[in-house]
Amino acid sequence: MQFVHTERHRAHDPKVETYLGLPIPANEVPARADAIVAALAADGGFELTPPTDHGTAPILAVHDAGLLRFLEAAWPEVERQRLSREFLVADTYPTRSMFAGMSDALVAARPEPVAIGGRVGWWGLDSSNPLVAGSYDAARGAVDVALTAADLVLGGETVTYGLCRPPGHHAAAAMAGGYCFFNNAAIAAHAIAESTGERVAILDVDVHHGNGTQQIFWRRSDVLYASLHADPRRLYPFFLGHADEVGEGPGAGTNLNLPQPLRADDATYLADLDRALEWIDASAGSIVVVSLGFDTYERDPIGDLALTTAGYHEMGRRVGALGRRLVILQEGGYFVPDLGANCVAWLRGAAGQPPA
Amino acid sequence: MQFVHTERHRAHDPKVETYLGLPIPANEVPARADAIVAALAADGGFELTPPTDHGTAPILAVHDAGLLRFLEAAWPEVERQRLSREFLVADTYPTRSMFAGMSDALVAARPEPVAIGGRVGWWGLDSSNPLVAGSYDAARGAVDVALTAADLVLGGETVTYGLCRPPGHHAAAAMAGGYCFFNNAAIAAHAIAESTGERVAILDVDVHHGNGTQQIFWRRSDVLYASLHADPRRLYPFFLGHADEVGEGPGAGTNLNLPQPLRADDATYLADLDRALEWIDASAGSIVVVSLGFDTYERDPIGDLALTTAGYHEMGRRVGALGRRLVILQEGGYFVPDLGANCVAWLRGAAGQPPA
Repeated sequence: MQFVHTERHRAHDPKVETYLGLPIPANEVPARADAIVAALAADGGFELTPPTDHGTAPILAVHDAGLLRFLEAAWPEVERQRLSREFLVADTYPTRSMFAGMSDALVAARPEPVAIGGRVGWWGLDSSNPLVAGSYDAARGAVDVALTAADLVLGGETVTYGLCRPPGHHAAAAMAGGYCFFNNAAIAAHAIAESTGERVAILDVDVHHGNGTQQIFWRRSDVLYASLHADPRRLYPFFLGHADEVGEGPGAGTNLNLPQPLRADDATYLADLDRALEWIDASAGSIVVVSLGFDTYERDPIGDLALTTAGYHEMGRRVGALGRRLVILQEGGYFVPDLGANCVAWLRGAAGQPPA
Repeated sequence: MQFVHTERHRAHDPKVETYLGLPIPANEVPARADAIVAALAADGGFELTPPTDHGTAPILAVHDAGLLRFLEAAWPEVERQRLSREFLVADTYPTRSMFAGMSDALVAARPEPVAIGGRVGWWGLDSSNPLVAGSYDAARGAVDVALTAADLVLGGETVTYGLCRPPGHHAAAAMAGGYCFFNNAAIAAHAIAESTGERVAILDVDVHHGNGTQQIFWRRSDVLYASLHADPRRLYPFFLGHADEVGEGPGAGTNLNLPQPLRADDATYLADLDRALEWIDASAGSIVVVSLGFDTYERDPIGDLALTTAGYHEMGRRVGALGRRLVILQEGGYFVPDLGANCVAWLRGAAGQPPA
């Protein structure tokens, strides 16, 4: 299997994130990718392909131009405004309740702040998403990884893996958040839909609901989104990911959320995975984009499900058995010691190979 | 002049707040009220009146019942969920971009999270607003202070001062934020409007835009809101407070924002104050609620204007010269050493007395 990876991710190297108002050691760190690369190399069945530069056009097909401008300008602006700090996190966010009663047109016409602290909130969701000097470059690299993995499948490969870092599925059209800056999977899915003219399905098996991906395709019929995730009443992103969110307008019926109970095990999870796969199988299309997270793992420090390495092999096997071409893109997963083994297990399953 | 005050404020005693992702010493602390009480006592012209209990009905006339329930339950819930911490601040907020494209009805039907970290974001705006063990009790006390000050004016007093702490003007119908839990001034203004059947004006001279007060009365014609504040493109609350926000529906034309330039001095500020006073004077009504902040002060650590103690006396004088009865309620102001002198100057001005 070809896997796409670049060292550019290393530029995004935050030391802390802010959890409930206090800095804690960052979870989304370069060592995550290192662990996966090492395991893929040790396995021997994976061939490294570097990404090609796709420019900003595929990003702007999915994201607000202001978000791109902000992410590009943010760190130079931190330096220009002489904010003496090693990471940028907002304290104030444009919550929906702040604008309650105001017409949509007037809300949309509010100007972006000038203060960098206001701007990072304007384009943000949470304080788990530290922006550092190299974040923009790394995020651009992750998009290129996703698009290159998509290119390989469009070029005839059956299954490819893109080791995206930073991840992407929490990033909405006009919002970064949850360790995510650009929505790699959404950008790839949009590019595939445009290129093939076919419906594309996104299967999201990260422990967190991919609120950004859902938002981007909420009213679109050409991209399906199915997600298994911890019930958001318990876990980030808290405010979206419920089962009654099925899409609206032209997208009605194209969104499937399957919230999981606390400490859901392999059997519980795989039963719902089958539901998602049947749902995808019932719709036309030949390519599935997988948002792959290992924060469903039983030892993950921030997830609350209980999947095992054997469960990941079986999950990959069932997704592969769908018989569609797969663009598998890395999202979360924070128990670094077992990330490599879990990733190899999943990918071997998807390729129809036995466990290592 | 009678001033209303209670020691209940002391229960809200946060040690830190979170600024751009890092904890810093709290600005909104009990010493603020102590400094003002000491200065009023030293002046000799102020008579302390304790507040009377007004219950929750006047709060629920202005705020969502869920906000009250959350604030009452939050700290016991922190303890029940065994979050080992001395203050509660959210990391994730329901931003408007998160829900972009989703119908209002569906957004309104999203369930409140169960996790306390999700709930505090659900009802929040920013990480400057630490909730501690005594916050709810103190916030209830501040509402009683405001309502008692209003009662005194409704009973015939010309001018009263309510030393509200915590302050209130950032709290919207369904949102706490910016050191504020309940909107003391909005609750008092609503109660006065109900009691008198007259139009009530709120004049907000805190350095920050009173986004909560604006939101609460955005579509109401019976309460005017005029605010002078640092341009929100520079300063908190960043996303509201612009000059083109004039109210909508029945409230069209009842909102006046006068954003101030960086380091605005007494002369610049007082010229705009005159505009606000003329605007209020042109409308019927006999009572003005003043949201009084001293964070416009030249030495304030978080404001960016440059008013002086002499300027405060003149501001009070001009507001008093409007000839309406005044319910003056404390909002912000964080340079503690001069808070007392600034407050005495303002109140003496409002009462038509010379500077101390």
